Amino acid sequence: MNCINQNKKAIILSSGGLDSTTVMAIAKSEGYGIYSLSFSYGQRHSVELEAAERVAEAIGVLKHLVISVDMKLIGGSALTDDIPVPKDRGEEEMGDDEIPVTYVPARNTIFLSYALGWAEVVGASDIFIGVNAVDYSGYPDCRPEFISAFEHMANLATKAGVEGRRVHIQTPLIQMTKAEIIQKGTALGVDYGITLSCYDPAADGLSCGHCDSCLLRKKGFAEAGVDDPTLYI
Amino acid sequence: MNCINQNKKAIILSSGGLDSTTVMAIAKSEGYGIYSLSFSYGQRHSVELEAAERVAEAIGVLKHLVISVDMKLIGGSALTDDIPVPKDRGEEEMGDDEIPVTYVPARNTIFLSYALGWAEVVGASDIFIGVNAVDYSGYPDCRPEFISAFEHMANLATKAGVEGRRVHIQTPLIQMTKAEIIQKGTALGVDYGITLSCYDPAADGLSCGHCDSCLLRKKGFAEAGVDDPTLYI
Repeated sequence: MNCINQNKKAIILSSGGLDSTTVMAIAKSEGYGIYSLSFSYGQRHSVELEAAERVAEAIGVLKHLVISVDMKLIGGSALTDDIPVPKDRGEEEMGDDEIPVTYVPARNTIFLSYALGWAEVVGASDIFIGVNAVDYSGYPDCRPEFISAFEHMANLATKAGVEGRRVHIQTPLIQMTKAEIIQKGTALGVDYGITLSCYDPAADGLSCGHCDSCLLRKKGFAEAGVDDPTLYI
Repeated sequence: MNCINQNKKAIILSSGGLDSTTVMAIAKSEGYGIYSLSFSYGQRHSVELEAAERVAEAIGVLKHLVISVDMKLIGGSALTDDIPVPKDRGEEEMGDDEIPVTYVPARNTIFLSYALGWAEVVGASDIFIGVNAVDYSGYPDCRPEFISAFEHMANLATKAGVEGRRVHIQTPLIQMTKAEIIQKGTALGVDYGITLSCYDPAADGLSCGHCDSCLLRKKGFAEAGVDDPTLYI
């Protein structure tokens, strides 16, 4: 007997991090059959792909796909170029409305476009992405107005859209704090020990503990009152 | 002395075909410094990448970039899967409002997204794409309403957009017939002998002469009253 509702399939962008893993747990709890999609984009932290693989297995996805994208050819970010990843920045520096050097031009647009193609092929009605407008307000492509414009475009782009099968871009974390995300995932049974958020991890997968992403993650666990299972260098 | 106007740069999606080559000639005639972008997407016709290379050289671009995209992993099209490319279809069959099997899910969305990322990195204000709503009305992502929605989304997606440097998606061919496109390019000095339109070319680059694209190309030259320099099998 197949317990998956065949009419309810979702593509979920998965980085192997805390946010996208929580999104997967939320979609799973809502009854979606899950297709998880990760990208190999010349990022420094290819160990994040191993985390995404662990998460896909733990969640029990229908299929996990890794797509290689040539971000390095385009360049322009600390995550793909030789610009140093900032360390030990205070909250004021992180939240000063400047667009961070870790911004990758058009990254979410490219990722969502692939998700849109895969959604059409497998017949998924929903695409989930773990963007967050609270803790990462510096990224233009994490804002609600971007997501809404992408959804509008997506429904004009595809055969499915033309034939009336609309696709929805779901962003369940968009207005949540890191602490709220951790509390939600913990309630859904997520093991955050298998996830990785660090922008600059060691080759063995340990987190640096000092980049913006590690600092936000540490603070999130502290505020959530949940033990931090992350292994730091 | 540099004769390129540094404030006028364009990314141009180039397939090495008749349409995109004409678009490049148009942009060049308007004074743009040109960055041409081609994609290697597991297509049957990788010889089209050789055509794109020839065109980039003939036009004199600032840079030509080839990005590999994993369309085959996603699947769903005669151009990337093992679905046969239709041959010798009559005009009625081509124009019957059905979406053709050569449709690749979200292809233009993915291509334009990469162009958007590259536009931001090089500071280009314009992205040109040779879509055409007259001869290829079956593709949803060739319609003016799709292009307009993409442009709106693009200006919310990037740092450039947030900072007020808008990007424009230009589609100079969108309302032109194939014959008009050929006449325009010929007037601008395009050598169509170096371009390739065929969906199913031989390994040596000769065109099949029977797929929809070859049939439209032949008809276009005939109607334009221009000698067809294409080499057929």
